[in-house]
Amino acid sequence: MTESCISRHAIEQMPDRFRASFINCLSGFKSANLIGTCAQRGQQENVAIVSSVVHVGANPPLLGMVMRPHTVVRDTLDNINATGVYTINHVSTHWTQQAHQTSARYPSEVSEFDATGLTAWYSDTFAAPFVQQSPIKLAMQLQSITPIALNNTQFVIGSIEEVWLDATGIDESGRIDLATHNVASVAGLDTYYRASRIGRYPYAKPE
Amino acid sequence: MTESCISRHAIEQMPDRFRASFINCLSGFKSANLIGTCAQRGQQENVAIVSSVVHVGANPPLLGMVMRPHTVVRDTLDNINATGVYTINHVSTHWTQQAHQTSARYPSEVSEFDATGLTAWYSDTFAAPFVQQSPIKLAMQLQSITPIALNNTQFVIGSIEEVWLDATGIDESGRIDLATHNVASVAGLDTYYRASRIGRYPYAKPE
Repeated sequence: MTESCISRHAIEQMPDRFRASFINCLSGFKSANLIGTCAQRGQQENVAIVSSVVHVGANPPLLGMVMRPHTVVRDTLDNINATGVYTINHVSTHWTQQAHQTSARYPSEVSEFDATGLTAWYSDTFAAPFVQQSPIKLAMQLQSITPIALNNTQFVIGSIEEVWLDATGIDESGRIDLATHNVASVAGLDTYYRASRIGRYPYAKPE
Repeated sequence: MTESCISRHAIEQMPDRFRASFINCLSGFKSANLIGTCAQRGQQENVAIVSSVVHVGANPPLLGMVMRPHTVVRDTLDNINATGVYTINHVSTHWTQQAHQTSARYPSEVSEFDATGLTAWYSDTFAAPFVQQSPIKLAMQLQSITPIALNNTQFVIGSIEEVWLDATGIDESGRIDLATHNVASVAGLDTYYRASRIGRYPYAKPE
């Protein structure tokens, strides 16, 4: 196997779609998540796939995601701004194609739940719709939206208010075995994966 | 399988380590990356594992990562601030344990390259050290550091200046098959995975 160097200059010369595919692979395996929102409870529901969810902190429990306004997630961002709440739902290995289909540019008045056969579900206490089929569902309260001036994206941070899952999957140290929960991951723009465990290692200390 | 709800209140009652394990699993499968830095070329080299690398944009090519100052990555952040450059190196499924060991709190004067048996390698044109064993290596130029006031972390964004990989693994659409490159992923704080492909779907359009 011989390695070669692809320079910044070569990246800039790539056709737009080729570059988008290539650069989207360079961040490695990504979490595949459906973001559930609505204009108000049960009204004008929206669900959109994102692959930019990232851990921000455990105490308080915070997750971030990078979003690009004026794209297919515009309705999602509008709803988050209007209501202050959203859900993050892990995509299952059993229905990655339905999850991917939420990335189509449906008109605002079309619910991607209806269009893709996913089911909106509400808990008693939270105003945004979860994806019923999802093995791990998170209720998120918007905490901050930070503009990223470099490319006009936004870094959206929310706090975790509810976690819905099969709690028997939480081990004595607080871990969730994501593979047992059939949680999928995604690479690039269009390729979905299942994971199998290589190893688990103790808290690292200098020898 | 019966689902139950873990509330924000229940999360706050968890012991610190249990909560850290639990919340770190909720962001799903994460990219496993080694960040290579040095005080100056070949001097005081540092390599540290992170799992918070996220795609920010393709044009210009930007990646972000969430970092917590005053922790084991302090040397990494100091070097990035001082030199403006760093590398992102994908962890291979063949040496996840060595990669994990870089998270130990070695003294600043100890190189994690030496301590873990990973090899520092320099390209002709870039001042920060790559991890020679890594199947996909990225040279990064610091673009911005945004403080996250919510929990005193920092969102570090860099541009991709060089990509080192086996270029035969790039397909006609610009995709890289990360599984073929033996790229690993991580869940939570300590569990590493290999991935196998479920499916690849066309650009989604409304039916």
